[in-house]
Amino acid sequence: MASKVPHLMTLGDLSAPEILRVLNHAYGLKRRTQPWLLPSVPSQAGKKSMRLPSQSLFPKTIALLFSKRSTRTRVAAETSAELLGGRALFLGSEDIQLGVNESPRDTARVIGGMCQGVFARVGDHSEIEELAKYSPVPVLNALSSLWHPTQILADLLTLHEHSDQFGTAKDPRKSPARLPDLKPLTVAYVGDSANVLHDMLVTYPRLGHQLRVASPKQYRAPTEVWDRVKELECDKGIWWGEDPKEAVRGADVVVTDTWISMGQEAEKEERLRAFEGYQVTEALCANANPSWKFLHCLPRKPHEVDDDVFYGSRSLVFPEADNRKWTIMALFE
Amino acid sequence: MASKVPHLMTLGDLSAPEILRVLNHAYGLKRRTQPWLLPSVPSQAGKKSMRLPSQSLFPKTIALLFSKRSTRTRVAAETSAELLGGRALFLGSEDIQLGVNESPRDTARVIGGMCQGVFARVGDHSEIEELAKYSPVPVLNALSSLWHPTQILADLLTLHEHSDQFGTAKDPRKSPARLPDLKPLTVAYVGDSANVLHDMLVTYPRLGHQLRVASPKQYRAPTEVWDRVKELECDKGIWWGEDPKEAVRGADVVVTDTWISMGQEAEKEERLRAFEGYQVTEALCANANPSWKFLHCLPRKPHEVDDDVFYGSRSLVFPEADNRKWTIMALFE
Amino acid sequence: MASKVPHLMTLGDLSAPEILRVLNHAYGLKRRTQPWLLPSVPSQAGKKSMRLPSQSLFPKTIALLFSKRSTRTRVAAETSAELLGGRALFLGSEDIQLGVNESPRDTARVIGGMCQGVFARVGDHSEIEELAKYSPVPVLNALSSLWHPTQILADLLTLHEHSDQFGTAKDPRKSPARLPDLKPLTVAYVGDSANVLHDMLVTYPRLGHQLRVASPKQYRAPTEVWDRVKELECDKGIWWGEDPKEAVRGADVVVTDTWISMGQEAEKEERLRAFEGYQVTEALCANANPSWKFLHCLPRKPHEVDDDVFYGSRSLVFPEADNRKWTIMALFE
Repeated sequence: MASKVPHLMTLGDLSAPEILRVLNHAYGLKRRTQPWLLPSVPSQAGKKSMRLPSQSLFPKTIALLFSKRSTRTRVAAETSAELLGGRALFLGSEDIQLGVNESPRDTARVIGGMCQGVFARVGDHSEIEELAKYSPVPVLNALSSLWHPTQILADLLTLHEHSDQFGTAKDPRKSPARLPDLKPLTVAYVGDSANVLHDMLVTYPRLGHQLRVASPKQYRAPTEVWDRVKELECDKGIWWGEDPKEAVRGADVVVTDTWISMGQEAEKEERLRAFEGYQVTEALCANANPSWKFLHCLPRKPHEVDDDVFYGSRSLVFPEADNRKWTIMALFE
Repeated sequence: MASKVPHLMTLGDLSAPEILRVLNHAYGLKRRTQPWLLPSVPSQAGKKSMRLPSQSLFPKTIALLFSKRSTRTRVAAETSAELLGGRALFLGSEDIQLGVNESPRDTARVIGGMCQGVFARVGDHSEIEELAKYSPVPVLNALSSLWHPTQILADLLTLHEHSDQFGTAKDPRKSPARLPDLKPLTVAYVGDSANVLHDMLVTYPRLGHQLRVASPKQYRAPTEVWDRVKELECDKGIWWGEDPKEAVRGADVVVTDTWISMGQEAEKEERLRAFEGYQVTEALCANANPSWKFLHCLPRKPHEVDDDVFYGSRSLVFPEADNRKWTIMALFE
Repeated sequence: MASKVPHLMTLGDLSAPEILRVLNHAYGLKRRTQPWLLPSVPSQAGKKSMRLPSQSLFPKTIALLFSKRSTRTRVAAETSAELLGGRALFLGSEDIQLGVNESPRDTARVIGGMCQGVFARVGDHSEIEELAKYSPVPVLNALSSLWHPTQILADLLTLHEHSDQFGTAKDPRKSPARLPDLKPLTVAYVGDSANVLHDMLVTYPRLGHQLRVASPKQYRAPTEVWDRVKELECDKGIWWGEDPKEAVRGADVVVTDTWISMGQEAEKEERLRAFEGYQVTEALCANANPSWKFLHCLPRKPHEVDDDVFYGSRSLVFPEADNRKWTIMALFE
């Protein structure tokens, strides 16, 4: 077991303390690196007093195997590798087609022989499982049909950073260098049962938060996700229904995601009908905690959430997007 | 105003002294960095005596948002960022489609949250204006339908470097480390009224040079360009007509550009007719200053300029292309 | 001659001692760099005692002009440049189309003015010859219709590293830091007469190895390859026939390659028929040296070699793929 390569397919692969350790590490990296990114160049003296960002990736390369394009994840990964002194090598579907010219087994072995990590964004989850099976270097899931672990890490970091807006946590923040504690929250997810929700299901309950989900009956999480939820004993912390108003009752945080994932464009009409009444608005959330906050993994379509909420003061979507970078950076390290 | 992000849409955004400062800076970077790029590796001792190229971009990333491809601009930008210790992250139209999956507003905010600058090559100029409106980090125009500021900087650097071929300037060169002065020149532009010309119109007159333009009547610069020209009081330094022979009379420099820009392929026949007689040749330029020089931003089609001129001793096109790199580097800093 | 740019079109351009020097250099780079790529980060003290990988490419950029895509070559080149402190700039067929928007002459001059080397993977060999003719910086052939020098370097490095499996060489290995010597081998190539074989033909005999080739009559190497073979006096070291069983007789190494190169998909049926009986299997190689090893440049199709051989203990294909990186790195230096 000790020699097994440490892949990451879902946050379900990590224990709760391990997840908090990654978040803490991301928080530290962010605090230490941000001063280097300011536009005004500090004086040489000032620079010397700054702690250099960790160059732990020097001179390594992480392959980004993206069979689905994503600006956000890609830019986050490429800038992260650069900040750590390494390099991300982007290979899109024009550059590599898993299983077309070569078996995934051979590709995994060849890329793993030249790069020191793989960050893969695939279609069907089985593709990344196959990569991980044969790769001699760690494979991190950058999104698959089933899971989206790096998104939930960014969400959690964002919530911890804004913990003061949810009321005092049990343990007050001890030091500015440490990730602020977060009191147990009620988190509502209103929308499609897809990869973002699935990683929430196996994560939030283990960190002490309540999950309330509204999703149309026909789009429930597949069996393999539920098996994982039960295995991790997360099912007790989850309320599930079809009424979005009921789901957001008492919520501190309201989360949604796209209703039509890449590849589902043909079902567009049907899906828009199924999600009628799911748009996140002030009216929908009348029964939420009055200081509720909003999260969305982007890109956003207006039918999912109106402009008032999306661009308003409740919205944490842009700090959340920025945090994709720091959490991915922590995982790379 | 002090907190406003310093975007660059056109050289019209900079004062004449600011433009000269950028040119001077580019000249200094070039002198300092070129020895590092020689094929023969200097000895360790030799290396130590060389001043290291500025690493001012470390560990920053500049996003290249190119909805129009361009080898020249892209290679110039990527090598520049590398030389400054940073990274350019290329996002072509396969990687990102402004406004398709996401509003330009959201894209600008997300990329600006992860990168420290944006160098954008767009179609319609309004696209880059919208990016600049919402971007928290500087947006540099790498080409739009209206303007092309980095090209004119490269042209000016090239002319200053070859100043001795135009006769003595008022102030003789004071030190080899300083950009050579340039005497007031007569610059002729023969061709389409497009982005290259537009940035010439708002720049050359302010630096003391005369502009003489020949362009078919139907392809005149749009009103918003002329408004800018008048606002900057550049109109007095410009002669405008339709006869290329008349335009090049007394010219020290003759400039042309493609007659058919990307996206205008459908108008090809019509445009070739409109530009009949515009090909730059020795014969066309019989009345120019006998030592006239030739500039072209490339890529070049033979109908615009014949081989004798293009590959001959009058042509500064390749030093001009090389200078794309150094001027972009100066802007990045 | 001294000022001529040192291009590399085929290993035929190098003398036998030069080839061995490149291999030795690759071997040294590999030994020195690999400890930096281990997953477990060494302590600061441990790091200080490690010799830093050469940063000889700092701050240079090598353009990868790939009109044919290749994961292996691309990843090898990009990671190599990174390890040497420089940068590889990938330009695929979406980014640049040689000769379409601009003459190859102009492209070569412009890219050569901004980058310090060109690594080009083209279709017809004449394309890379034209690039080399006009490029002011070295052009390395990353694959053309005629030659594939970097593949043969990787093959040779792999064979030298596994020299103990072929019996003792004349000169026993003197020091662990030096490339192990290799006794004269019999190398069989069974398959299409294409670029991989062509570079073998001009290389192996000069290094003292015997070549035995089986290839269908209609797919013989073109005249220009044979001219080179004769010029280098390699023809005496080559047996050529059509019977794969005869070719592998006594072979220490059996090599094959794809039967259907990119662009030959239309001839698929015809080619599959022509190569009937060419699949590398234990049965086919019954008369080879009992300890024969297998090489393949990848990607592999099962009709060329069965799973038993390909994934078995005779197969050196994955060390061979890894060595693409180290030999390309040696060439870059």
